[in-house]
Amino acid sequence: MKENKNREVKLPFKETKNIVANALKKYVNKSKKDNEVVLKQNSPEKIAEMLNASSIFENGFSNTKELNNFINIYLENTNHLKNPRYMGHQVAVPHDLSGIPDWIHGTINNPSSLYEMGPAGATLEAFMINWMLSQLGWFRGKSLYDFKKLQNNGSGILTHGGSIANMTALSAARSNIAPESWEKGNPKDLVVIGPSTSHYSIVRALSIMGMGKDSFIPVPVDKNEVIITTELENVYTKIKNEGKRVMAVVANACATSTGLFDPIEEMASFCKKNSLWFHVDGAHGAVALLSPVHKLKVKGIEDADSIIWDAHKMLRVPSLCTAVLFKKQEHMWNSFHQKGSYVFHENEVIGMDSMPFTIECTKSALGTKLFWS
Amino acid sequence: MKENKNREVKLPFKETKNIVANALKKYVNKSKKDNEVVLKQNSPEKIAEMLNASSIFENGFSNTKELNNFINIYLENTNHLKNPRYMGHQVAVPHDLSGIPDWIHGTINNPSSLYEMGPAGATLEAFMINWMLSQLGWFRGKSLYDFKKLQNNGSGILTHGGSIANMTALSAARSNIAPESWEKGNPKDLVVIGPSTSHYSIVRALSIMGMGKDSFIPVPVDKNEVIITTELENVYTKIKNEGKRVMAVVANACATSTGLFDPIEEMASFCKKNSLWFHVDGAHGAVALLSPVHKLKVKGIEDADSIIWDAHKMLRVPSLCTAVLFKKQEHMWNSFHQKGSYVFHENEVIGMDSMPFTIECTKSALGTKLFWS
Repeated sequence: MKENKNREVKLPFKETKNIVANALKKYVNKSKKDNEVVLKQNSPEKIAEMLNASSIFENGFSNTKELNNFINIYLENTNHLKNPRYMGHQVAVPHDLSGIPDWIHGTINNPSSLYEMGPAGATLEAFMINWMLSQLGWFRGKSLYDFKKLQNNGSGILTHGGSIANMTALSAARSNIAPESWEKGNPKDLVVIGPSTSHYSIVRALSIMGMGKDSFIPVPVDKNEVIITTELENVYTKIKNEGKRVMAVVANACATSTGLFDPIEEMASFCKKNSLWFHVDGAHGAVALLSPVHKLKVKGIEDADSIIWDAHKMLRVPSLCTAVLFKKQEHMWNSFHQKGSYVFHENEVIGMDSMPFTIECTKSALGTKLFWS
Repeated sequence: MKENKNREVKLPFKETKNIVANALKKYVNKSKKDNEVVLKQNSPEKIAEMLNASSIFENGFSNTKELNNFINIYLENTNHLKNPRYMGHQVAVPHDLSGIPDWIHGTINNPSSLYEMGPAGATLEAFMINWMLSQLGWFRGKSLYDFKKLQNNGSGILTHGGSIANMTALSAARSNIAPESWEKGNPKDLVVIGPSTSHYSIVRALSIMGMGKDSFIPVPVDKNEVIITTELENVYTKIKNEGKRVMAVVANACATSTGLFDPIEEMASFCKKNSLWFHVDGAHGAVALLSPVHKLKVKGIEDADSIIWDAHKMLRVPSLCTAVLFKKQEHMWNSFHQKGSYVFHENEVIGMDSMPFTIECTKSALGTKLFWS
């Protein structure tokens, strides 16, 4: 960078690795003690100064003292998620070794979006998707090593975060109802309905997708902020009478602010009855699938058309890592394709390249992070 | 995961770290030798089996032998970017220590999109954005530690990859010409013009944004696949006569397949003359700004309205890390806002939270990766 020879690393791998490892280990142990500070509130100006950012950026780390100082100041000025008193935003409290797969990715830089650019990473992504699909009953293979696209299989993809994941699923829903929109642009009569407490990324996705915020029709919720199913019926009847088409019905599983689940099963059967696309925003709560006790909360989720599931929330994976899952695999293939009229042929061999199915072109090795955690 | 006690980590941090560090070091050294294999072509089924993925996923790493085997098989089945004979896709050949900031992020999981969730990471992101802006002459602060929003300052944001970055810039362009679209949806008369050799993510972004592929009007290129400026004029006149409005003019800096730059300066003055938004896709080539020799190739880039710049290409940063930069800071604030009519007040204090300005809600600590590389 900057064609500045000074910036070349002066510390060898071994020294750097040891200093960072010691600092991280100390950090992890200290963070877990509840008499430690969760978050220090320094200004960015002060942090930059304490880090000695300008000098280090210009000259690199010249000696172990400089690196030691940097890493300690850096770690001090973080939010200590492992602290038992941590009550901040809803991202994973990562498990103690969750940095390792990130370290591997950062060293080898094999994006998993093209098989030939990262065979091992792409393999673990496909493996983890099979595992997630099998939790939903959407996997038809004999073992998780079965990467062929089988008849009636579901499909899925890992992507950088829930917002992008919701947009991916909604794009597939749009391709399904209005395949011409990929070339011609949106028709004007599409709307999405869901609880007024839907995550802001749903409405935002619709705005980015050029449908406008007004294309989201909120359904009233009860005092617990859970959707009222009878109101869903009322809203649907009303917009149908207005000549609008429903692109998708969205459910919270669970709501971001309350942690409560919409009645998935009721909503699923409502969608089935009316032939509507059912999208479950399970960023936080799809993880309930893994618990014999809490599984009941997402009963009916297997009848959804699309689901998103953040691994960087309850699966201990550092940000970002979100799965978008489709009951019908052809819907994934249509997300970003020109025609929604794709017909599935059993003999067609679809490769391991995930690039056509995500908003990103290059991706990180998200599957390895998820596998490891 | 899976409430399976077996999956708990049985190897302590120290042992895991040592095994991974040794394997990575060996990998880096071996990769640099040109008599080594760049890429082995195993099938995903075979890789999964060799990795012993099912058993490890169920039971965790039980002993050092298992971890050793896993990491070595994993690294063997990667694309060895550091090999001198590597001729694959255009992502960074990362520098030897580029895994370290990823390791730190993965351990502490401090997303930089909300200041209080990752003060140190957010600080380094703001610092790096200031540095990038200063390369363009778009920074008005006295030092790179100046994080205030100054009059006539540019602004910018780091995001997960070039595709998302192009979409962010194009969203800002849409907010500028049609601020009502955020609530009401796209007007029907917007088009984007650029060389027919534009990266596929541009046209794809327009389709995702609900404008349709047809809203991209390709301009003919010469035999080197560089835009013909007179043709740009012709295309513009034609679409103006058809009653269409130009949302943005896009330039390649450089083109993905050839590495050649469109005539940025000529295109910039064309856009200025006609009051059109000028977007430079500098994913690959904005890095020329750092070279006294190659800087000429992007002459005029400082007259763009928006630029994207991938750090995970020529800046040695592992994927993903892309900057979206705006000449006028208010354009960034408008990217995902309801109204494009924002008026800049000098005294307004805009916080360090980057979340409102990116497609992602949660982000990784992208600034730290860039700072370190």
